[in-house]
Amino acid sequence: MNRALSIRSNKNKESSSGGTRHGFSLNSLRGTVQPELSKKLYKLIKSENHLIQCYENAGKERLSIATQLSDWGEATTDDAISDISDKVGVLLSELGEQEDLYAHNIDDSRAILKAIRNTEKSVQPSRDHKAKIADEIAKLKAKEPQSAKLVTLEQELVRSEAENLVAEAQLTNITRQKLKEAYAAEFAATIERAEKQIILARHGRRLLNLLDDTPVVPGDVRPAYEHSNQARQILNDAEDDLRDWQPELEDVPSSAQLESNLMPREQHQQIAQSDMGDESVLHHQHAQGGSSETGVDGSRISSGGSVTTGQPLDSYAPSESEATRSQVA
Amino acid sequence: MNRALSIRSNKNKESSSGGTRHGFSLNSLRGTVQPELSKKLYKLIKSENHLIQCYENAGKERLSIATQLSDWGEATTDDAISDISDKVGVLLSELGEQEDLYAHNIDDSRAILKAIRNTEKSVQPSRDHKAKIADEIAKLKAKEPQSAKLVTLEQELVRSEAENLVAEAQLTNITRQKLKEAYAAEFAATIERAEKQIILARHGRRLLNLLDDTPVVPGDVRPAYEHSNQARQILNDAEDDLRDWQPELEDVPSSAQLESNLMPREQHQQIAQSDMGDESVLHHQHAQGGSSETGVDGSRISSGGSVTTGQPLDSYAPSESEATRSQVA
Repeated sequence: MNRALSIRSNKNKESSSGGTRHGFSLNSLRGTVQPELSKKLYKLIKSENHLIQCYENAGKERLSIATQLSDWGEATTDDAISDISDKVGVLLSELGEQEDLYAHNIDDSRAILKAIRNTEKSVQPSRDHKAKIADEIAKLKAKEPQSAKLVTLEQELVRSEAENLVAEAQLTNITRQKLKEAYAAEFAATIERAEKQIILARHGRRLLNLLDDTPVVPGDVRPAYEHSNQARQILNDAEDDLRDWQPELEDVPSSAQLESNLMPREQHQQIAQSDMGDESVLHHQHAQGGSSETGVDGSRISSGGSVTTGQPLDSYAPSESEATRSQVA
Repeated sequence: MNRALSIRSNKNKESSSGGTRHGFSLNSLRGTVQPELSKKLYKLIKSENHLIQCYENAGKERLSIATQLSDWGEATTDDAISDISDKVGVLLSELGEQEDLYAHNIDDSRAILKAIRNTEKSVQPSRDHKAKIADEIAKLKAKEPQSAKLVTLEQELVRSEAENLVAEAQLTNITRQKLKEAYAAEFAATIERAEKQIILARHGRRLLNLLDDTPVVPGDVRPAYEHSNQARQILNDAEDDLRDWQPELEDVPSSAQLESNLMPREQHQQIAQSDMGDESVLHHQHAQGGSSETGVDGSRISSGGSVTTGQPLDSYAPSESEATRSQVA
């Protein structure tokens, strides 16, 4: 592992300011047009698909080679080679099955990453919306500093900031949980393939030891092959070992107890029932950049009581979380 | 491993009588026209090449995914995700390097199989030649039973039989030795990849445990990430473990001590120096199908003394073994 302790590319930096993309529609969700925020993960998930195909193809080639080896061995009309090549073929084909299983397991891990990507997608409009209103306010302030529309826009900005706070919390929650989950699964799958293939390969080497490669001189006939029972026993041993295999993994525990709205479980009721609209509280939190208290306290954005802005945030936030939910599912 | 104890296809049986193909030239050795005898292995070796490409591609995709994951993590602007994703990326890229190394090792194993295929190719003309003369004799006997040419042909047949006995011995010697060697190497490579990837994946799961996925509520700021030293240490541990890795394999000993003419080592001098032409001895050996004495005794086809046939076998056998040698090399 002669490499640096980082593999970051640190080149080809794209501007990742996501505030400039507009016109993002549900249509483009399924297409190749990705919002800035989910572009990198979108590509990574595509690459994972290529990786999966590589392993699927490797599995298929292995199976084909296994059959070919067995057929070749039979055609030699040498009993020893015929039996050993057939049994080695059985082990090779099982190596191939393990490649295929690995491909499926990576696919499961890939599906977990999609939950992050989908949340990234759904958070982008929230960031865009906030940026757009801030932009409008700045323009209007320069043009018509006394415009009555400024008050409405300021109120709208506060609502969009509250909405974005929720979205960003959802994003960090899902990102950390799913990143951990996806790669814990991928590493577990790597270990499973490895341990099972070690079983197969070790028995494979035992099989090869049944093949006497003492050279003969012309006209000599080789002693009769007498190891077919031993060879069969080795396959049985391999089968037993595979059946008895159990994963022995260091646990990767998750602290994520997320509701479907991507909020901590114990907070769900409070948030859902609150009006989520006390702008002074929101502003305060936002301005100070949030506190780092470890206690999970939903009262921050849900002080309840009167809604001072034109419409309750509820009308926006739930639709957002619903959208996220349906995409994650 | 829910499969039969054989994977032989037992279908699509091709007639493997190699006696009908003529006009086999050196030109076609490099082309796709394969003599019957080496067709199966020729295809198998091609399939191994596809398998190698699968693993090379898998290695490349892994490297690409590793870099993408690291870049994505950096773009999240979350210190914890940035560091963990970068370090996970380092381990993933090393997983990819191991796939590439595996591909190279399979390629080495594939090169060993080529030695069998090349010998198969070189033995085919010998079988064909013998069959052709036997065929001519049969035809002539039916047409002109008293023809003086029959004596010459019978002598030629004996020579071709002697030559073929050598060729078949070379073939069985190289086939057993190289089959064992090739798959012992391939299984060893499988174990190496597996054991190294287990090291990487287990450290990968340790890394993931440094990522706190406790969910936050909107406005919360996560505690500062404080595990970068631990993460770096895990990479160092992985590097140390990889460096300390040693193969621990059940030995697959070979009894094959072959000279470059594919005969047993201790017989080399005798065979090379003998005239290899005493037809009564050869005929005797051939008729009784050879003995199965385990003692390797080169005197069978090298009783020395007078050459009763028109030309010494030496003039054919060495060119045959030279051809084999140059193809194997």
